Amino acid sequence: MAGPLFTLTTDFGSGSGYPAQMKAVLLGVFPDARIVDVTHEVPAFDVLSGALLLEACLPWFPRDAIHVAVVDPGVGTTRRALCVVDGDGRRIVAPDNGLLTPFLVRGARARAIVEGGVLPAPRSATFHGRDLFCPAAAYLARGGTPAALGPEVPDPLRLEWPVAAVSEHEVRGTTLARDPFGNLLTSIRAADLAGGIVREASAGGEPARWVRTFGEGRPGELIALVGSGGRVEIAVREGSAAERLCAIRGVPVRLVLGPAESAC
Amino acid sequence: MAGPLFTLTTDFGSGSGYPAQMKAVLLGVFPDARIVDVTHEVPAFDVLSGALLLEACLPWFPRDAIHVAVVDPGVGTTRRALCVVDGDGRRIVAPDNGLLTPFLVRGARARAIVEGGVLPAPRSATFHGRDLFCPAAAYLARGGTPAALGPEVPDPLRLEWPVAAVSEHEVRGTTLARDPFGNLLTSIRAADLAGGIVREASAGGEPARWVRTFGEGRPGELIALVGSGGRVEIAVREGSAAERLCAIRGVPVRLVLGPAESAC
Amino acid sequence: MAGPLFTLTTDFGSGSGYPAQMKAVLLGVFPDARIVDVTHEVPAFDVLSGALLLEACLPWFPRDAIHVAVVDPGVGTTRRALCVVDGDGRRIVAPDNGLLTPFLVRGARARAIVEGGVLPAPRSATFHGRDLFCPAAAYLARGGTPAALGPEVPDPLRLEWPVAAVSEHEVRGTTLARDPFGNLLTSIRAADLAGGIVREASAGGEPARWVRTFGEGRPGELIALVGSGGRVEIAVREGSAAERLCAIRGVPVRLVLGPAESAC
Repeated sequence: MAGPLFTLTTDFGSGSGYPAQMKAVLLGVFPDARIVDVTHEVPAFDVLSGALLLEACLPWFPRDAIHVAVVDPGVGTTRRALCVVDGDGRRIVAPDNGLLTPFLVRGARARAIVEGGVLPAPRSATFHGRDLFCPAAAYLARGGTPAALGPEVPDPLRLEWPVAAVSEHEVRGTTLARDPFGNLLTSIRAADLAGGIVREASAGGEPARWVRTFGEGRPGELIALVGSGGRVEIAVREGSAAERLCAIRGVPVRLVLGPAESAC
Repeated sequence: MAGPLFTLTTDFGSGSGYPAQMKAVLLGVFPDARIVDVTHEVPAFDVLSGALLLEACLPWFPRDAIHVAVVDPGVGTTRRALCVVDGDGRRIVAPDNGLLTPFLVRGARARAIVEGGVLPAPRSATFHGRDLFCPAAAYLARGGTPAALGPEVPDPLRLEWPVAAVSEHEVRGTTLARDPFGNLLTSIRAADLAGGIVREASAGGEPARWVRTFGEGRPGELIALVGSGGRVEIAVREGSAAERLCAIRGVPVRLVLGPAESAC
Repeated sequence: MAGPLFTLTTDFGSGSGYPAQMKAVLLGVFPDARIVDVTHEVPAFDVLSGALLLEACLPWFPRDAIHVAVVDPGVGTTRRALCVVDGDGRRIVAPDNGLLTPFLVRGARARAIVEGGVLPAPRSATFHGRDLFCPAAAYLARGGTPAALGPEVPDPLRLEWPVAAVSEHEVRGTTLARDPFGNLLTSIRAADLAGGIVREASAGGEPARWVRTFGEGRPGELIALVGSGGRVEIAVREGSAAERLCAIRGVPVRLVLGPAESAC
């Protein structure tokens, strides 16, 4: 029997000892805990980048995993701590700062994690990852209910999540974040294309060739494609679109669509 | 039954294959070993930063964990290898270069790890993490005693650990290291404040506002607080104190204290 | 009973969520999977650096480990996917782009991993680490045979692996890659020295002192030694040879040998 499965997503940096302290807390409760680092390299304090990483990664994990996500510039202030159970039954603990925006849809329920309720009061005002969120995750793994952690939160904070503007022949969006290769994630999802064929693409006014995979690009060429996380990405073959466009967030992206059935 | 728990702390870099080789050695002995990376991003050859990371992290782990710590510019020379059992019974193997200074207190005992004793002679002169320290840790996990590894070391090397100068109304210290956010750890511990109220703080002669948590600072403002590891830290809200002060180590820090009972 | 052991080696970056998605896939099949990151910091698209890391690391793992290696600029194009069983029975899945060159020797056999054969068709054209290679590794761990994955590949792609030029009194090679310390790996293996004593060494025409371990160098001095992976390395004590020589790959290295038995 494998122990409970936890994932950790933070902006603490793998050079810090903070993720290790979180693991120590979990292993102290569950010696057989399985702990997976999603990443500890979310850009510091960048809640949107963290949210996009969670969106791309958490759905791949077994449904019984318990997810701890901490990008938390407001730690120790009045910002609430949340335990969210999303519409698929996925359990996530995180600060109430928009980090869980992608999961606050269809049937999700959010509860506050009350300090000093079923959990001990946090030992620090600066490191709730270790002192509040991991204890809450361990509480859930022991069979504790979200309801016991605190009252329902009807209005969890959501990021103003940029949504693509979709019309019959065009989809407009914007770049949101980068991955380590320099590929730029956009606000356009594969579903926004509605099966249409992309005839033209551009980013920041510059043409980008629409391809199926990175290797179809020519070296140095700006390309656009549906990435592995289901969002349209802007990329450069064996290069960095972030460097090429000198930007990460806010570059306007435009796709011109043709009908799915037309010959290409 | 969970297998033995090991932690690894090195300056090898997560871009190297060195930590993986250490894990391979441990898994070769214990297929069910649990291995936690504290970090492999200790700044290269920076024994003091490594010591501070160990100080902050190891106490959180279950007492039966076996800790391997390798920041080792003197590998293969005459520097000794140590197995330390600290006053709490915590077992740590590391080079004898001051890396274990925080643990060489109250009742700690150090033993040399003799090459070619109960352990095979190291296969390399350059990678004792893989060839000496992990085999020593595995030896301990199999039930081997520190005494069998080698003779007692009465004089393990200690860093000149900067200690805060505490007087009735003032505590003076210095910055020692940074974390990935750029927060600066200082030589002043929470205990040095002896429950007094901090009335004024400064770092490098520049005023720093004393706060309870990061979010109380104003953007760009220099702040000082008790960090999650029990040391006073100098920070900038959602910024880097290391960049702000253009320094990591050696910045003088001064706290002016008032009595605990006074109204603030 | 410990679960199956997998290792992951990629250029995805620990800041990406890609390695976590690969782990999620493996844990979905084997809740008790043991997963070791060799590294996710192979320089982007640098197949040679990835091959050298695999060469240095994989032999240390238990023989029954299944290795997933993905440095894959050609993902989604016509490049083949491979399952290699090397002469020691080690199983590795990777793109057919030379990444497995060190293992394609003595008795190795390569098979193609056919998309949509015993494995489901990949869900993306851009992330075969998650969608093809991890499913293939899980297939092997379930007892599936390499033969079932696809047909034999008689001509797997090999890198033009630089080999040292060995003569009676001299060995000439070149630098190939760096580690995070800035130590430069060369194309000269310990075996190329054939037990001879190195009398002189140089890199890029600059003298390098031949030593046994890093600590024998003087600060700033260029040194040469046999590294822990069995290759000659160029290094600077507590410094970076890569920075010192302003280069990583292609620096000519020359060793002058004397007979093994002569007094030094």
